[in-house]
Amino acid sequence: MECGDPVEQVTIRPGMSVNELVCELARAGAYNGGALARAADIYERMLTDKKTVKFFGLAGAMVPAGMGGIVSDLLTRGYIDLLVSTGANLTHDIIEALGCRHYHGSAFCSDIELRQEEINRIYDVFLPNEAFATFESFIQESLSTLDPGHSYPISELLTLLGKRLDHGILATAAATGIPVYCPAVADSMIGLQCWLYSQSGKISVDAFSDMRGLIDRCFTAEKAGALLVGGGVPKNFILQSMLMTPQGFTYAVQLTGDRPDLGGLSGATLDEARSWGKITGDAQAVTVYGDATITLPVLVAAVLERMER
Amino acid sequence: MECGDPVEQVTIRPGMSVNELVCELARAGAYNGGALARAADIYERMLTDKKTVKFFGLAGAMVPAGMGGIVSDLLTRGYIDLLVSTGANLTHDIIEALGCRHYHGSAFCSDIELRQEEINRIYDVFLPNEAFATFESFIQESLSTLDPGHSYPISELLTLLGKRLDHGILATAAATGIPVYCPAVADSMIGLQCWLYSQSGKISVDAFSDMRGLIDRCFTAEKAGALLVGGGVPKNFILQSMLMTPQGFTYAVQLTGDRPDLGGLSGATLDEARSWGKITGDAQAVTVYGDATITLPVLVAAVLERMER
Amino acid sequence: MECGDPVEQVTIRPGMSVNELVCELARAGAYNGGALARAADIYERMLTDKKTVKFFGLAGAMVPAGMGGIVSDLLTRGYIDLLVSTGANLTHDIIEALGCRHYHGSAFCSDIELRQEEINRIYDVFLPNEAFATFESFIQESLSTLDPGHSYPISELLTLLGKRLDHGILATAAATGIPVYCPAVADSMIGLQCWLYSQSGKISVDAFSDMRGLIDRCFTAEKAGALLVGGGVPKNFILQSMLMTPQGFTYAVQLTGDRPDLGGLSGATLDEARSWGKITGDAQAVTVYGDATITLPVLVAAVLERMER
Amino acid sequence: MECGDPVEQVTIRPGMSVNELVCELARAGAYNGGALARAADIYERMLTDKKTVKFFGLAGAMVPAGMGGIVSDLLTRGYIDLLVSTGANLTHDIIEALGCRHYHGSAFCSDIELRQEEINRIYDVFLPNEAFATFESFIQESLSTLDPGHSYPISELLTLLGKRLDHGILATAAATGIPVYCPAVADSMIGLQCWLYSQSGKISVDAFSDMRGLIDRCFTAEKAGALLVGGGVPKNFILQSMLMTPQGFTYAVQLTGDRPDLGGLSGATLDEARSWGKITGDAQAVTVYGDATITLPVLVAAVLERMER
Repeated sequence: MECGDPVEQVTIRPGMSVNELVCELARAGAYNGGALARAADIYERMLTDKKTVKFFGLAGAMVPAGMGGIVSDLLTRGYIDLLVSTGANLTHDIIEALGCRHYHGSAFCSDIELRQEEINRIYDVFLPNEAFATFESFIQESLSTLDPGHSYPISELLTLLGKRLDHGILATAAATGIPVYCPAVADSMIGLQCWLYSQSGKISVDAFSDMRGLIDRCFTAEKAGALLVGGGVPKNFILQSMLMTPQGFTYAVQLTGDRPDLGGLSGATLDEARSWGKITGDAQAVTVYGDATITLPVLVAAVLERMER
Repeated sequence: MECGDPVEQVTIRPGMSVNELVCELARAGAYNGGALARAADIYERMLTDKKTVKFFGLAGAMVPAGMGGIVSDLLTRGYIDLLVSTGANLTHDIIEALGCRHYHGSAFCSDIELRQEEINRIYDVFLPNEAFATFESFIQESLSTLDPGHSYPISELLTLLGKRLDHGILATAAATGIPVYCPAVADSMIGLQCWLYSQSGKISVDAFSDMRGLIDRCFTAEKAGALLVGGGVPKNFILQSMLMTPQGFTYAVQLTGDRPDLGGLSGATLDEARSWGKITGDAQAVTVYGDATITLPVLVAAVLERMER
Repeated sequence: MECGDPVEQVTIRPGMSVNELVCELARAGAYNGGALARAADIYERMLTDKKTVKFFGLAGAMVPAGMGGIVSDLLTRGYIDLLVSTGANLTHDIIEALGCRHYHGSAFCSDIELRQEEINRIYDVFLPNEAFATFESFIQESLSTLDPGHSYPISELLTLLGKRLDHGILATAAATGIPVYCPAVADSMIGLQCWLYSQSGKISVDAFSDMRGLIDRCFTAEKAGALLVGGGVPKNFILQSMLMTPQGFTYAVQLTGDRPDLGGLSGATLDEARSWGKITGDAQAVTVYGDATITLPVLVAAVLERMER
Repeated sequence: MECGDPVEQVTIRPGMSVNELVCELARAGAYNGGALARAADIYERMLTDKKTVKFFGLAGAMVPAGMGGIVSDLLTRGYIDLLVSTGANLTHDIIEALGCRHYHGSAFCSDIELRQEEINRIYDVFLPNEAFATFESFIQESLSTLDPGHSYPISELLTLLGKRLDHGILATAAATGIPVYCPAVADSMIGLQCWLYSQSGKISVDAFSDMRGLIDRCFTAEKAGALLVGGGVPKNFILQSMLMTPQGFTYAVQLTGDRPDLGGLSGATLDEARSWGKITGDAQAVTVYGDATITLPVLVAAVLERMER
C-alpha cells in the first residue's frame, strides 16, 4: 500500500481551456474528477494507438440531450470504428436529421397536460408528437426501396437509412462507412416501423446476422478499445463481443450514472469485467460516475485538444 | 394543494408478517417506503382485476441474486401473462436449471485473481466458468432438435429451451404456456450460442416475428398492467408495446435503482410515460427507487399474503 | 478467492414474517438484499452482546417520514444506550409530541402555492407552518424554567425538553435516562430558538461540554456497536468518538442512500472506517445502500422477532 | 405547457475554453449538463449583483480532493462574503496549510493493511496519520494564546487559526476578513482538540454566539445568494439563516450527488426550499446532480472567465 503523488489543490485560470482544466483535475486526482482525468489519458492513448479497433457504445437518451453531435463529430474524425447504439438514440437521430427538433422543457410539469398537447417528455426535454409522423413516413418510404423477400442484417438497414439523411449519427456513419450495430432494434420506434413494414411480407430482419462481421472484426483486431456512454445493451454487447476471441479489451472508459452495488451490468465496474476476460488483466480502464451530458463533452473536448495540438 | 392523511409513526411488532409491515409503511406514507406501500396496493389491484393482462419486465442481474425464484413462483400462480426479460437473466436461469450454481462472493477482491481461477464476478456473486461449458452443450444440443432451414421467433426458441428444463423461469413459463419475450437476445450468451449454431446455416431467428403476437395481445386486452423490475430493454419494450394500441397501461409499478435526472428511460418516472400515452392519464402508477433485491421480495410477499387470505 | 455458499433462489410464503423473509434474503445473499440480511445478523449480535455499548445515529428526515416511532421503541426496549441525532429530527419529534402532525403530500406540486398556503414540504410530506408556532412557544416556555446565568450542555437541554413531553424520541429518552447528543444543534429550529432565548442573556450553551460524558462512556465500554441511519453529523460524531480511545467499534451497521464514489463520509463504506481505526480491523460491519424508510423497518422487525422468540 | 428553445447538438472545438463548453451545454440544455449551464448563468448574476451578500456552503470531503484551492481563490477574489463549512474540510485545510499532504491512493485496497501502515483513507485519497500529530500541536499551541476564562465564538477561533497559517481557506478568510462559520465544529478533529484544551478549564466555546453576527448580516442584506457545495450542515445552516428574516435567498446554486427521493435535505431540490420561504418564490435557483469534483471546477472556470473578460 503506497501513497501516490500528492493531491494538488485545483487552480482555476479564467479563460483556461477544457484540457487545461482536466489537467488540473489530474493533479487533484480524487473521486470522479480524478477518474475523468484518467479517462482522458486512457481515451487519448486509445485514439492514438494505431493497432486499436475503437468501439463506441451509446446508451441513455443522449441524442435528445444534444450529445449526438459529439458522436457524429467523432465519426467524422475517424475516432470510432464500430458504433453500438440503442434504438432510441438512432430514432431521435433520424428525427433530428429530418429537421424535426427536440425542445428545452421542464421535468416538473403536468404530463397529463403534455399528453393533451401531444408533447412527449424525456426528463426536461420536450418532443412534439408530429415528429413521429415525419419519422414514420421516412422509414416506410426508405424500406420500400428494399428488395422484397430478402433478409437484412440490422446494420445494413441502418446504413440504408443513413444514406438517405444528410446529417447526424446515421448519416455520418453511412458516409464514412462505419458500421452501426443495434442489437435491440426491435425495442425502438425503428423496430416498430420495420415490423409494420415486414408484415406485408416483403422483408425480414435477422436477429443474428450482424454477429459475423462484428466477431470477425474482433478476431482480426490486434487490440481493442471502448468508450462506453451509459450501460444497457450497448455496453454488454460490446464487452461480450470480445468473449469469443482469445483476448479482451486493452482500453476501456465508461461514463455512467448508475451504481455498482445494485449488481446490474450498467453500473458494474470495469474491474468486474476483468474477471470475465472481457477486458484484459492489465487493461487501462476507468469508470466515471456521473451524468454523461457533463462528462462526455468534457472528456471529448480535452482529448480533441490533445489530438489536434 | 391539500394535506392528506397524517403521517403515522411506524410501530414494529415482533413476528409481524411482511404485509403487516407494508401496511405500517402505508400509514407512514413517505419517501420510498410510502411508494413501496402504494406499489403493493396497485399490484394487488392489478392481480385481482380479471380484465387485466399482466406484463412482467425483468432487467438487472436478478437471477444471479436469487430473485428468479420469485418470478417462477409468480408464473406458477398465474400472476404473469407475458414476461419480457434481458437475455442475461435467462442465461443465468438456464445455468441454475442445469444444476450449476451461483455462489456468495465479495465485491471487493482481485478480479485478476478471479480470472486466473476462472470465476466470473457479478458484484458480490461468483459464477465459476465451468457453468458456461454446461450451458453451451445444453444450448447446442437443444438447437440441434430444430428443423433445419426454418426461421424461428425468439419466444419459440425460449419455449423450446424451457421445455427441456425442469425448474426455473423458462421451465415454468414453458410448462404454463406463458410467452417469454427477449427482444435483445443477441446481446446475451443465449444469443451468442444461437448465432454460432445458425452459422452452420440450419436455422435463422427473426428479430421482429414476436411482435405480432405481442401486439395482438395488447390489442385484445381490455386493460393492461405491468410490474417492471429494473429498466433497460424490458421496461421500454413493454411500454412501447402499448403505443400501437389506442390505450396505455392502467396499472404500472416500477422498481428501479436508477435516477430520473440522467434522462435515461431506466430511471424515468412513470409520470413521464403518461406524456407518451404509454400509460393512461389516470393510470395507477408508482416508482419505488431502491435495490430490487429488497423491494421485490417485500412487494411480492405483501401482495401474496393479501391474495391468499 | 473462494466461492461461499450457493445462492438460493428466494421463496415467498404468503403470510411469512419479516424475519422469515430476511432469512430468505440471507440465503440469496446478494447485493443490498444480502447486505440487509447480514445487517440483521450483526445487529442481533450487537444487541445480545451484554458487554457492548449501543450507539444509534439518526440523520435524514426520518421523523417526518414516520420512522421516529421505531427509535422510540428501541429506546423503550433498552436497545439504545446513546443516541446522536440531527437537530431537525428532534425538532420534528417535538412537533409530533406536541400533537401537531406531518401529512401525506406530494413531491410534484407547486412550492410557490405551498408557500402561499403556509405549508412546508419535505419531499412528499407536508407540514403546516402553524406547527412551528406551537413548537416555538413550547421551547421558549421550557427554557424559561432554566437557571439564568448558567451554561448548559446540549444533552441536558434536550433532556429538559424531553421531560416536558409525553411521547416520542426525546420523551422516551428522558424517561429512560438515555442521553441524546446533538452536536449540530445550532443548525436546527431548536438551535434558533435557544439562541433567541439566550439573547436575553439568561443562559449559555457550551459547544463541547457533552464531550466528556461521551468520551468517558467510550473509554469505559468493553465493546461498542453502532446502528447508523443516514450519514451526516451523527455518523461522523459517533465514529470519531472512538478515535480518542484505544479501540474502535466492534459492530457497525449503516443504512444509507448515498454512494461511496463521491468521497463524502455519508456514503463512505465502513471498510474505509477501518483504516482510521474508527472500527476495529475485525469488526463485523456492513453497509446497506437504499432508502432507510424501507431498510430500517425491515431490519428492526427482523431483529425484534429474533430477540423476542 | 410550452416548448422552449430547440436543443442544439453540442459541437466540440479543440482548444475551446471551459466557458465556451458551458455555453454549448446551455444550447443543448438538457439534464444535468443543462442544469450546470443554468448554474453558471445564475452564479454569474449573483456575483455581479452588487446588492447581494454571497454565501458559500462547503460540505463533502472537498479539501482532500483538491477543491479547497477553488474556495481560497473565490475568497481572494471577493466572491464569498460568508463561508459555512463542515469541520472536516477545515481540519484538512489546516493540515495542507501546515505542509502535510493528501496523496493519490485507491478505493480498492485493504483497509486493514492501511491501518497497519497508519494511513487513513478518504475514498481514493490517502492521508498518513502523522499529519494529525502536526495538526494537534498546531491547534494546542494556537489555543494556548487565548485568554483563559473567556468564552469564544466558533468563528473567532477559526479566524485565530487562520491568522497563524499562510495559505488555504482559513488563512485566506482570516487575511481578507471573511467570517467562517462551522456550527458543527464539535463534530471534527478541530472540535476534539478544542475540547481537550478546554478541559483544562481555560476557555469555553459557545454553541450559539455566532448566530447574532450571521443573522444581523442576513437582516441587513438587500439580497442574498448562495453557492452550496454538497448538503449537510452547511446547506441547512445557510438556508435556515434567512428564515429569521422577512425574505429568502434570491439566487441559489446547489451542487450535490445526493438524490431527492430519500427525503433528506442534502438531496432536496431548491424548489422544496421555496415552500419554506428559504428561497424566494421567484428566486433563480438550480440544482446540479453529480460529483462536485467535476461540477465545481467547471462552474467556477466558466464564471471566472465571464467575470474577467
